[in-house]
Amino acid sequence: MLRDHLISAAHLSRDDIEAVLDHAAAIDADPGIVRGRHAGRVLALCFFEPSTRTKMSFETAMKRLGGDTIDMGAVESSSVKKGESLADTVRVIEGYADALVLRHPSEGSAKLASEFVDVPLVNAGDGAGQHPSQTLLDLYTIRENAGLDDITVGIMGDLKYGRTVHSLAHALTEFDVRQHFISPESLRLPRNVRYDLHETGAEVREHTDLDEVLPELDVLYVTRIQRERFPEEREYREVAGEYRIDNEVLADASEDLTVMHPLPRVDEIAPEVDETARAKYFEQAHNGVPVRMALLDGLLGGDT
Amino acid sequence: MLRDHLISAAHLSRDDIEAVLDHAAAIDADPGIVRGRHAGRVLALCFFEPSTRTKMSFETAMKRLGGDTIDMGAVESSSVKKGESLADTVRVIEGYADALVLRHPSEGSAKLASEFVDVPLVNAGDGAGQHPSQTLLDLYTIRENAGLDDITVGIMGDLKYGRTVHSLAHALTEFDVRQHFISPESLRLPRNVRYDLHETGAEVREHTDLDEVLPELDVLYVTRIQRERFPEEREYREVAGEYRIDNEVLADASEDLTVMHPLPRVDEIAPEVDETARAKYFEQAHNGVPVRMALLDGLLGGDT
Amino acid sequence: MLRDHLISAAHLSRDDIEAVLDHAAAIDADPGIVRGRHAGRVLALCFFEPSTRTKMSFETAMKRLGGDTIDMGAVESSSVKKGESLADTVRVIEGYADALVLRHPSEGSAKLASEFVDVPLVNAGDGAGQHPSQTLLDLYTIRENAGLDDITVGIMGDLKYGRTVHSLAHALTEFDVRQHFISPESLRLPRNVRYDLHETGAEVREHTDLDEVLPELDVLYVTRIQRERFPEEREYREVAGEYRIDNEVLADASEDLTVMHPLPRVDEIAPEVDETARAKYFEQAHNGVPVRMALLDGLLGGDT
Repeated sequence: MLRDHLISAAHLSRDDIEAVLDHAAAIDADPGIVRGRHAGRVLALCFFEPSTRTKMSFETAMKRLGGDTIDMGAVESSSVKKGESLADTVRVIEGYADALVLRHPSEGSAKLASEFVDVPLVNAGDGAGQHPSQTLLDLYTIRENAGLDDITVGIMGDLKYGRTVHSLAHALTEFDVRQHFISPESLRLPRNVRYDLHETGAEVREHTDLDEVLPELDVLYVTRIQRERFPEEREYREVAGEYRIDNEVLADASEDLTVMHPLPRVDEIAPEVDETARAKYFEQAHNGVPVRMALLDGLLGGDT
Repeated sequence: MLRDHLISAAHLSRDDIEAVLDHAAAIDADPGIVRGRHAGRVLALCFFEPSTRTKMSFETAMKRLGGDTIDMGAVESSSVKKGESLADTVRVIEGYADALVLRHPSEGSAKLASEFVDVPLVNAGDGAGQHPSQTLLDLYTIRENAGLDDITVGIMGDLKYGRTVHSLAHALTEFDVRQHFISPESLRLPRNVRYDLHETGAEVREHTDLDEVLPELDVLYVTRIQRERFPEEREYREVAGEYRIDNEVLADASEDLTVMHPLPRVDEIAPEVDETARAKYFEQAHNGVPVRMALLDGLLGGDT
Repeated sequence: MLRDHLISAAHLSRDDIEAVLDHAAAIDADPGIVRGRHAGRVLALCFFEPSTRTKMSFETAMKRLGGDTIDMGAVESSSVKKGESLADTVRVIEGYADALVLRHPSEGSAKLASEFVDVPLVNAGDGAGQHPSQTLLDLYTIRENAGLDDITVGIMGDLKYGRTVHSLAHALTEFDVRQHFISPESLRLPRNVRYDLHETGAEVREHTDLDEVLPELDVLYVTRIQRERFPEEREYREVAGEYRIDNEVLADASEDLTVMHPLPRVDEIAPEVDETARAKYFEQAHNGVPVRMALLDGLLGGDT
C-alpha cells in the first residue's frame, strides 16, 4: 500500500491502484475493520483554494478512521497573507499533523511542498495539474459498476481544461479500457494529453457527436462546460446545449450504462436522469469516503 | 423519540416534545449516560447563512456524544457558488454524514432538502420559517424554571418578524400556558400567526404596555427590536426604549420571574439584570447543548 | 500546575513555568501519558483576529489529548457583528465548552473576558498585550536547546511593537539569563518595558549592531521588521537589510547558536540557514503542540 506522498495518479501502477480500491471495497463492506484505528492522529487540511466536497470527504474519512482534522482556514486569514512561502507554511503545519492534504492554485505546488515535509502529503488539486484521490474514486466507481476490464468508457464535455479528465484518462490506460472522448472542437483534449495516451498504446478515439458512440458505452463520464471559456454567451449556450444529457438523449444507450459526473453540475445532466438506475454521480461522490479512508489508512501506516 | 427529519416544531406533539425534554434533563443530570455513544458518527453542518451559537452548540452536542462534525463552510467558498442546486448539495453531503443540520435563507428550503436525503435532517432556521431546536431549548428552559403547566408567559419585542417567537408561541399551545404578547403596534404578531393561535383555543392576549401584565408573568421572553425595521433612527430609538428591561422596570414583577432572551442582545436587557436570579438567558443558551444532544441521540438511533 | 485563567506570562512564577515545561517535556517524550485523557471535553476557539498557527496548534493539542474543539468562526459571520458585547459572547460560549482560548485585537480584553466566565480562559493574544502560550513555547525551545541557566540571549528586530518580545524578555528575567536587544534606533524597546526589565535586576543591554554581541550569544531570537512601521519604502529596505540573517552574517557565531523566530518570516532569515543545525524556528513552532498540551491538561484538571 502507498506509504509515501501522493502527488499524481500518474505515479500509480495498476497494482497500487488495485490495492487502494480493494482496501476501499473492504472498508465499504465493513467499516468496522478500521474503526478507531487512527485515534489521536491528526490530518491537516491546507486548502489554498476553496473546496466543499473534497475537503468534507477527507474530513469524514479521517474522522471515520477515529482520527481528527485541523484546517488551515481561508488564505485571507492565514500567514500566507503576511508573505509566508508555501515551503514555510507546510513545514510549520507538519509539526501539528500526521499527514497533510494540500490544494493549491499553482501547478507543481504539491510536488514542491512534498520536498519540504516528512509526513505524507496528498495532492488534492494543484491548479491545472493533478488530483489523484479524485481519480481513485472515479476508478472505484467504474470498477464497482462496470468492472475495469474489457469496457468502453466515454468522457464528454470540457476535455481541454479538466484536470479530472486528464488524470482519469491516464489512469484508465493501466486497464483494459477503450476510451472515447466527446467534445466540441474547441474543447478537445490538449495535444500533449492525446500524445501521452497514444504513447501508452491505449485505444483512444475522439468525437464531436455523442450519438456516434453512445450505444457502445459501458460508462459515460460527463463534465461541465464552463461559461467562462467562451467569449460570447450565445456561443456558450449553443455548445453547452449539444453536450447536455437527458433521458431522451440516453434512449439509445445500454440499460446498464453508468453515468458519472465529478459534480457540481449546473445543467449538463437533467434532473430526470437522477431517478434512473444509470445515475451514479451521487454514489461516485459518496465513494470519496471509503476511497480516502483506504488511502489515509495506508499513508498513516494502518494496514499492517 | 424522533427518528425522522425535524423540519418544524409545529410537527411535534406534546408527547414528542416531552420525550426530548425528558431525555435532555437526564443527559444534563448525568452526561455519562450518552458519553461516547456515537463514536465514529459524523454530523454535517450546512449553514448557508452565518450562525455562531446554533452551530457551536450543535457541534458541542455532537462531540459530547462522542461523534464528530464536518462543516460545509461559507457559501462563498462552496459549490453553491458554482451554481449547484440545494438538492444536489445535500445529496452529496449525505454521503459524508449520518445526519445533516441545515440553515438556509429561504423559507421552505429545509422541507425541500429533506425530500432528497435519507439521513435525518434538522432545520436550523429557514428564513422567516422554523427553527425547531431553538423552540425545544426555549421550552426546556421554561420547564426547568417555571414548569409548563398553569403558567403565564409574556413575549415581548419584535413579534412581527421573529421566527423564534412564532415557533415558541405555537409550541406553547400544546401546554397549559396563558400567553401575552407585548409589542409596539407596528411590530404586532402577524395576522396569520394570531389566527393559528386562536384556532388552537389557547388563551392569547396582546398589549402595547408591559406594565399591564408584568405582575402576572412567570416568564418574560424578550426579543430584539431591529434597527433595520424602522425608516427613521429616531423612531427606532423611541420604540426600542419603551421595550427595554432593567431592574426598575422589573420592580413590580414576581421575585420568581424567569427572564429569557434568544440572544444576541444589544441593549434590550440592561447588564444589571444579569446579576439577578431572574436572568436565565445565558442558562437558556447553554441549554442548547443537552437539548441538541437529546435530539441528535434520538435521530441517530441511540436511545434504544 | 496552572488551574486558572492564563492571561499574562507576567503572572507566572519560575515554578509555574517550570511545571508546564516539565510536563510538556514528559508529553513530548511519551505522548501516551495523556492520550485520550480528555475524551468528551471541548475547547472553544474564540479568535476575533485571524491566526493560522496559534489556532491550529491549540486544535492539535486538544485533539491529541483526546478532546475536541469548536470554533467561533470569523467575526464577520458571528453575533459580534450584530452588536453583541465580548462579555455576552464569552458567557454564551462557556456553556458549550470546558475551556476557552481567546484572541482579540484590544489590549486588556482577555482580562475583561476572564471576569465573566467560570471555565479556564487562555489569552492567545490581546492586541499589543500578552500571548503567554507563545512565551511558554519560546522558553521551552530555549530550555531544550541551550538550557535556561547562565545563558546569553539576543533578541533582534522590531522590539518596539512586538508583544512576543516583551513577554519573552519579561519571562527570561525569572531565569539566569543575560539579555541583549538589537534593533534600529527607531524600533528600540519601549521605555516602560526597559524600565520593567531593569527593575527586576536583570542584566539587559541594547545594541544597534548585531556584530557587537553575536559571538557571545547562545540564542538569537529574530523577529520581523514590518514594512508598515516606515513611512518610506526606501527607509524600510535599508533598515530591514541590516537586520537580516544569513550564513555569512552568522560566521562569527557559536557553532551551538540556537536561531529562533516566531514565524511567519518574510526574509529576515535566508533559506540557506534552514539547512544548518542552528535553525530551530520550525522546531520552535512544533513545540507549540506539547507545550499547549501540557497547559490544557493542567487547566482541564488532568494532571492529578
